[in-house]
Amino acid sequence: MSEMRIRSDFWERYLDIVRDCLIPYQWGVLTNRIVCSTPSYAVRNFKIAAGAEEGEFSGFVFQDSDLYKWLEAVGNLLAYEKDPELERKADEIIGYIAEAQEADGYLNTYFQLKEPEKKWSNLLECHELYCAGHLMEAAVAYARGTGKDRLLGTACRLADCIHRVFGWEEDKLHGCPGHQEIELGLLKLYDWTGEDRYLKLASYFLEIRGTNSYFEEEFERRGRISHWTQGPVEEPNRHYNQYPYSYYNQFHAPVRCQTEAVGHAVRAVYMYTAMAKAAVLCKDEELLRTCKSLWKNIAETQMYITGNIGSTPSGEAFTRAYDLPNDTNYSETCASVGLIRFSMEMLKAELDSCYGDVIEKALYNTVLAGMAVDGRHFFYVNPMEAVPEICEANPERNHIKTVRQEWYSCACCPPNIARTITDIRSLICSVSGSRICIHQYIGSELEAETGEGAIRFSLASDFPWDGRAKIRILQADGVYGEFALRIPGWCIGCRLAINGQKVRPEDFDTERGYLMVKRVWKAGDLLDWVMDMEPHFIQADRRVYYNAGKAALVRGPLVYCMEEADNGSCLHECRVDAAGDIREKWEKDMGGYCSLFIAGVRYRGRIQEKLYDRLAVQKEDVCLKAVPYFLWNNRGQGEMVTWVNVV
Amino acid sequence: MSEMRIRSDFWERYLDIVRDCLIPYQWGVLTNRIVCSTPSYAVRNFKIAAGAEEGEFSGFVFQDSDLYKWLEAVGNLLAYEKDPELERKADEIIGYIAEAQEADGYLNTYFQLKEPEKKWSNLLECHELYCAGHLMEAAVAYARGTGKDRLLGTACRLADCIHRVFGWEEDKLHGCPGHQEIELGLLKLYDWTGEDRYLKLASYFLEIRGTNSYFEEEFERRGRISHWTQGPVEEPNRHYNQYPYSYYNQFHAPVRCQTEAVGHAVRAVYMYTAMAKAAVLCKDEELLRTCKSLWKNIAETQMYITGNIGSTPSGEAFTRAYDLPNDTNYSETCASVGLIRFSMEMLKAELDSCYGDVIEKALYNTVLAGMAVDGRHFFYVNPMEAVPEICEANPERNHIKTVRQEWYSCACCPPNIARTITDIRSLICSVSGSRICIHQYIGSELEAETGEGAIRFSLASDFPWDGRAKIRILQADGVYGEFALRIPGWCIGCRLAINGQKVRPEDFDTERGYLMVKRVWKAGDLLDWVMDMEPHFIQADRRVYYNAGKAALVRGPLVYCMEEADNGSCLHECRVDAAGDIREKWEKDMGGYCSLFIAGVRYRGRIQEKLYDRLAVQKEDVCLKAVPYFLWNNRGQGEMVTWVNVV
Repeated sequence: MSEMRIRSDFWERYLDIVRDCLIPYQWGVLTNRIVCSTPSYAVRNFKIAAGAEEGEFSGFVFQDSDLYKWLEAVGNLLAYEKDPELERKADEIIGYIAEAQEADGYLNTYFQLKEPEKKWSNLLECHELYCAGHLMEAAVAYARGTGKDRLLGTACRLADCIHRVFGWEEDKLHGCPGHQEIELGLLKLYDWTGEDRYLKLASYFLEIRGTNSYFEEEFERRGRISHWTQGPVEEPNRHYNQYPYSYYNQFHAPVRCQTEAVGHAVRAVYMYTAMAKAAVLCKDEELLRTCKSLWKNIAETQMYITGNIGSTPSGEAFTRAYDLPNDTNYSETCASVGLIRFSMEMLKAELDSCYGDVIEKALYNTVLAGMAVDGRHFFYVNPMEAVPEICEANPERNHIKTVRQEWYSCACCPPNIARTITDIRSLICSVSGSRICIHQYIGSELEAETGEGAIRFSLASDFPWDGRAKIRILQADGVYGEFALRIPGWCIGCRLAINGQKVRPEDFDTERGYLMVKRVWKAGDLLDWVMDMEPHFIQADRRVYYNAGKAALVRGPLVYCMEEADNGSCLHECRVDAAGDIREKWEKDMGGYCSLFIAGVRYRGRIQEKLYDRLAVQKEDVCLKAVPYFLWNNRGQGEMVTWVNVV
Repeated sequence: MSEMRIRSDFWERYLDIVRDCLIPYQWGVLTNRIVCSTPSYAVRNFKIAAGAEEGEFSGFVFQDSDLYKWLEAVGNLLAYEKDPELERKADEIIGYIAEAQEADGYLNTYFQLKEPEKKWSNLLECHELYCAGHLMEAAVAYARGTGKDRLLGTACRLADCIHRVFGWEEDKLHGCPGHQEIELGLLKLYDWTGEDRYLKLASYFLEIRGTNSYFEEEFERRGRISHWTQGPVEEPNRHYNQYPYSYYNQFHAPVRCQTEAVGHAVRAVYMYTAMAKAAVLCKDEELLRTCKSLWKNIAETQMYITGNIGSTPSGEAFTRAYDLPNDTNYSETCASVGLIRFSMEMLKAELDSCYGDVIEKALYNTVLAGMAVDGRHFFYVNPMEAVPEICEANPERNHIKTVRQEWYSCACCPPNIARTITDIRSLICSVSGSRICIHQYIGSELEAETGEGAIRFSLASDFPWDGRAKIRILQADGVYGEFALRIPGWCIGCRLAINGQKVRPEDFDTERGYLMVKRVWKAGDLLDWVMDMEPHFIQADRRVYYNAGKAALVRGPLVYCMEEADNGSCLHECRVDAAGDIREKWEKDMGGYCSLFIAGVRYRGRIQEKLYDRLAVQKEDVCLKAVPYFLWNNRGQGEMVTWVNVV
């Protein structure tokens, strides 16, 4: 796409929130002007490393990445609209970053300031390559957004430094990162610079993984010391859950032999994203097949209905097919960000609506749920149900917060939300040959350079509230083109009219879940595409034991939940009448949303003298109100439930 | 009671299992003749310490206690009936124990063999006092069962050694155990020997707790080394869950100031048991009030319907009032053994049927569930529901085994079951003044020495299957006595006839849940006491969120569950019609039991192409079979559920 502007009330509001609240707020945190639970020190670390300030390193070993992710979001924002003041701030810190870089290109404030002799000695735990990857992503975004290449230069020098240290050659280190990210960073750097060595280095990091015992050897070399305990430990990693320790970081097998998503969910999807991107860039069919089976394993067996992943807090990890508990899951916001990126790369490899479906689920439900409507409070963990008293009392549920937090000492999620929302444009549309593929119905104005010529068009939609999308050709001059319109998985009925002329459904030309409209286009042409969004109930596959007898309410891409604010406490007493009518109502609070009303029955319990007493069933008919899952917990702390028993 | 014999098919069968299977099996394990996952070495450690064998200590720091608990069960068994071969085996090992004891009375094979210079240096973690307590309990049981006092002598010498080391005096150590148990051991030793110093030492250990920073000081003295990691750690204990570390071992406050049960459940109830016993022995009203509030906190807010306790595997601990998850709980068998003992001590302090109710729940449901009908497989953890696939896949549920294990390296539960069953007689009846209190309706023949004279009587019952108990006076000679018959909490209706003469319910003389029958007794008198045992459904207090809309099926003291063996898989799809009839059927397998049949509805799910698909409710009427919870998992691995949704 040569040009794209967002024209969506819904998304422009989110972009405003990110620009006006989240980005300044994050800046405040990174510069320690806003101090939450733990001060960040991220900017200060760079100033110290640059010699501009005195002091010691503070924060986690991966603290640098928080700043890089902020810069990536800023780059995205500046591409969207100019903001001289923000750009000045960013340029200033980019200056410090450049000055902090060592002569050979090395850059990581933790090791430079705290343990200069230990560089590259603990790849498994110490996130050096992870931080480098985020620098590369930020540099490309910033170059794209501003045309400035100072950060890009820093990133390239660091990439070159890494290239001198790591690789297949005998005199180089044969390691790879404990937290994947550099693979994708290098691929983006390759995309932007065209430098072949970055592609090769990314391939190296992917392909070396799981093929040698480098992590074990470096562990022995450093005297079996763990970064986290600063003392000797028995194994390089802790065994996690029922798996050997290598599963946690996905080095249990060469990547091409991996077929099931395992281990730390964020690490996993970051790696799969890079694998998919590399497969496309290298036209590597085998690698693509691997990616497909990993993607299918996630989407078809290990993903929540809201597009979140990671069934357990133990290792923030995947567990096994169909193990999807509602009240003890982890489902990190970052993991859904990674899943969106993985799906987007898969979509570049093959047009199939399944990818856009998952992106839509993860985006509208989990990513948006990760941030309060005030843009200043965040969820790391995204449960499918929550009772504040239980989450407070029970250790297996205590990782679930029932109030969004101001910040986190390990602050990965808020910046990830920022860079996703500011880059929302990248999810809408792709062009290949004469084909213009619409993946997400986000109101926008676009110019597509097709193989046949340029087509400028507007996409008007009120997603996620209304299922109508109008594509109007603004400029085309008789260019032939194929519009491929994703038919969402949730859509039961749809209607198309071209210039007011209805197309009969039996005449629909579809291809892997996309409706194809082939035509020579001229300005003024109008595609009127309506996807039915009636709310309805969903059931999970029977093998998801946790959801037996339960249903979830959805409307279009949105999953709904019930909250205590609307329905009182003890929500688990409620059951929904899935055969009853579902009434819609437009609400004005929380930025405006469509609420749903359903009939149900409440099995009212009683506060009784004895903990256990004779059963006396007290049923009452109730009208239940459901709100979009992504808006939960914006009206104070309270219970929430997504999967509800049916009557 | 001067004499007591069990005359109950049900309990004699269990005594047979313990005598014929469990005790020999445990002996095989303790002597390494049977090797399960981890060899025990418990007997070998003593032989080495006695100089009768060469070698090194093996096993946990608390390994000695496994042998002591076995000896306690053997002592109980020998009191029940002579067994020269078993007694010979026990005497032999008692000889080694005596020879292992040091001149000053010290005895603990771990420290003697492995770290002789570190005695009493790590009370928090190293279980020296815990093992000593178990020796004392075993010694008293063995003396009672055999009349022999060699083990008692060893126990007293160790108690005296401890008495020289610990106490209020300035020149003694002011510590107390990290795992409570010695308090109860000393109180039993006092009971048996009448030596006042044992009572005082027990009181010391209780009262010093939570009043000083001894655990912190010893931690500093040993250079902050943890026994478990053998390396330095930051704090004496790990913080556990949401609580400061002192809560885990209940030294967060002086015991008299504790009102809520917290921390490791077994440690907690062992301590409360000793507190209650000390309160009675010392007529300490204040301490008794503390015990009452702790007991009520457990029984009224933190106990499962099966009498098990410990809602979380994190610290094997209590969490908070009404937090009673069904699928992630810990509920260690040992904790229920401790709860029975605590309740029994409370019963000695005050006659109230609530204590007998809890004892009955814990005994018939959890303790018996802890052992397979073969006497060779055991549960440590007692869930309220379980799905094998989930327990295998999900880390928050992986501590739940869905097949009883052969043994455990930390083998506390099987010996605890053995000593409870072999001491079952102690739970039946107590005598105080002219009052003969029947707490548990376990068929038996008893002779009570009341203040007015001796009364011999038989208690005939087919508990837990039938609610009739017949008390027949065998010998009395016109002795006045008051029979106090516990009216179980589960009993809705009851009938009494004295010598064939019905007593009208309005003439019942009751006192705190006991029916009082006052009379001058003569041989041949018959009390025919019938407690209605119709099966019915129970609901939990509304604050137990996990059980909203659910019910549990009970019959008399037994809680029932549904198993996959009878009802197929995906049990969570089933709901019970709580208003329908409940049909009883006598079954011959698993030692014979009463099964229950109930009408219900199954919300049948489907294995579908998509993980999430449009809801299509498929209900079908089903007949569900329930079996006693304590018998679950005796017919192969499969799903089990206790709390079921009602229709």
